Amino acid sequence: MSRTSEKALLPAGLRDVLPPDAAYEADTVERLIAVFSARGYERVKPPLLEFEEALLSGAGAALSQQTFRLMDPVSQRMLALRADMTTQVARIAGYRLAKVPRPLRLCYAGQVLRVKGSQLRAERQFAQVGAELIGTDAEAADAEAVSMAVEALQSVGLQRLSVDLNLPPLVGALAAELGLDPELTAELRQALDRKDAAAVETLAGAHAKLFLGLLQAAGPADEALARLERLALPADVAAGAGRLARVTVLLRAALPDLTLTVDPVEHRGFEYQTGVSFTIYARGVRGEIGRGGRYTTGDDGAEEPATGFTLFMDSVMRAMPPAPPGQRVYLPAGTPHDEARALRADGWVTLAGLESAADSAAEARRLGCAHLWQDGRVVELD
Amino acid sequence: MSRTSEKALLPAGLRDVLPPDAAYEADTVERLIAVFSARGYERVKPPLLEFEEALLSGAGAALSQQTFRLMDPVSQRMLALRADMTTQVARIAGYRLAKVPRPLRLCYAGQVLRVKGSQLRAERQFAQVGAELIGTDAEAADAEAVSMAVEALQSVGLQRLSVDLNLPPLVGALAAELGLDPELTAELRQALDRKDAAAVETLAGAHAKLFLGLLQAAGPADEALARLERLALPADVAAGAGRLARVTVLLRAALPDLTLTVDPVEHRGFEYQTGVSFTIYARGVRGEIGRGGRYTTGDDGAEEPATGFTLFMDSVMRAMPPAPPGQRVYLPAGTPHDEARALRADGWVTLAGLESAADSAAEARRLGCAHLWQDGRVVELD
Repeated sequence: MSRTSEKALLPAGLRDVLPPDAAYEADTVERLIAVFSARGYERVKPPLLEFEEALLSGAGAALSQQTFRLMDPVSQRMLALRADMTTQVARIAGYRLAKVPRPLRLCYAGQVLRVKGSQLRAERQFAQVGAELIGTDAEAADAEAVSMAVEALQSVGLQRLSVDLNLPPLVGALAAELGLDPELTAELRQALDRKDAAAVETLAGAHAKLFLGLLQAAGPADEALARLERLALPADVAAGAGRLARVTVLLRAALPDLTLTVDPVEHRGFEYQTGVSFTIYARGVRGEIGRGGRYTTGDDGAEEPATGFTLFMDSVMRAMPPAPPGQRVYLPAGTPHDEARALRADGWVTLAGLESAADSAAEARRLGCAHLWQDGRVVELD
Repeated sequence: MSRTSEKALLPAGLRDVLPPDAAYEADTVERLIAVFSARGYERVKPPLLEFEEALLSGAGAALSQQTFRLMDPVSQRMLALRADMTTQVARIAGYRLAKVPRPLRLCYAGQVLRVKGSQLRAERQFAQVGAELIGTDAEAADAEAVSMAVEALQSVGLQRLSVDLNLPPLVGALAAELGLDPELTAELRQALDRKDAAAVETLAGAHAKLFLGLLQAAGPADEALARLERLALPADVAAGAGRLARVTVLLRAALPDLTLTVDPVEHRGFEYQTGVSFTIYARGVRGEIGRGGRYTTGDDGAEEPATGFTLFMDSVMRAMPPAPPGQRVYLPAGTPHDEARALRADGWVTLAGLESAADSAAEARRLGCAHLWQDGRVVELD
């Protein structure tokens, strides 16, 4: 049996993260969380498994097809292995932390598993890191979610970020105001998501000018918002667009240099969003780095307005600069413990020799150390 | 429907970790890992799911009954949700990192899931944090594993730790030298694990004195090792005991103040250990904080000597001092972004007001802030 045995194989989409990547990812997760914590977002940690009907209720239903299930021999009921953590955090806010004063700020980091990889994301396991701001419909809350996500990503070294601002309920609200039937609305939404102007024109009929106008109100934020404002939208729909414009102003005040685009008709992946939403990209990295937006959480007459976002760590790590190498020093066997501790306190990674080596310098090099502890000092090896 | 709805229920043994515990646990994990990293242990992150036959082969088989399984629709094969990470790290060492120079130092942190809770541990999900030192049978490696585990636990604030040193293969080796049959050996082992002197005496027959001597060679390390040395053990068995004594000397040099006990016959939970093993306790905390020891990894003629340990984060957190509270300051709506950033850079947790409040001090108190940002300075509220 060879070393590339069957045992070494992992299921497609599942992988070992090796040195130095695993440490770099974990460190990046904690640095992102530190940014949220410094703004009062308190960490929660829901379990990996829950009862299927709890995890896949409400917004969780969207990921039903992507969720692994298994039988729990203890409860004799089906459990689901989470494919997303947002629903879990909403459950914690609504039940466990129902009595904590609002707005409630929560953050989380954890692994999620999906039944199938997608074209953009082959991974079936990846880490999510996110934050939720629950119990407020303030425009400042929309802006805080976007700016905090961006500042967190910048703090770990991500550059050339851009944010696409969206208004997922806009098309539906407009169609309802115009009295379009649900089937036509669905087709129109798909044509708008595809940016298929010809189809939009055909489907919208008498309202073609308005829907084509929405399609054209996309691009760099200032121009797009100006075009959106000029459209003859019904008052209720215009109010939503006005809010998007005001959130953009707040966002510019927080992050004047951020590249902002607007696409008011984008709807894909925002099925549960009820207001200003956003997608974060890093130039040169395929797929989105993160996404978020406004939604309604809770049920049973205890609904709450909320906003939040999730960052996808597989994409974040693809966008990161290379991991900085550590400084490793080899300590020949028998080096006193206090000398080793002093070196570590100075930031060195110490590699202790376990048996005496004939040539300490050669042994240091063999173990990937560019430095050797010799005669009470660190010697750099060539 | 009330707020204590069915939806809020979690399966037995699975729980939400809430503020401030979730942040405290995550922070503690990273501080433990930092201690390992500073000693050259490089982090790996295996996936939560693997093919059942890979995860449950070799030493992994011991946890077969405790492992959740599910069907993978992609590969059409059974997957197992890990109940332990040691086997995964051994697989990575043996296959993915087979060509990295030895000794190989790896560390890891992650969630594991078990089908049933135990009396000592009701949790069915908990975090494991551990380290493995692979490809060396040096006595200094045994000592490094124990001392690093203890130093890591001390560094996060755990006090009154004690380590029980064990020699799991001792009883089997002695029984084999004396020609005892396997069935009798198994019964004897159980009697020794129970510390049942009467049963040991009956079962051991002509060898009663020797086995009772082993049973009595337990307690504070120095006395226990002295008693062990005085026993008339066969040469091969005495060599193992001698090694335990020498590792203890190395350990005392590294950590002179550590409380050390020896129990040479302890075998429970050490079915795969091949040499010096250990269990870490914290006074006043039920169950073990961590355990580890020497084992053989790899297969197919590519076996390697190894040692390592796992810390159980549920037990670690039970032994930790209370989480230090953060300093939260409330920033009235409209506080300039640069003032907020300066406060965070100074270590403050800032809570931004999202809408103007009539009474900022009252709003600060309502949100759990003991401080308010007013007229360009932090005001402490009574």
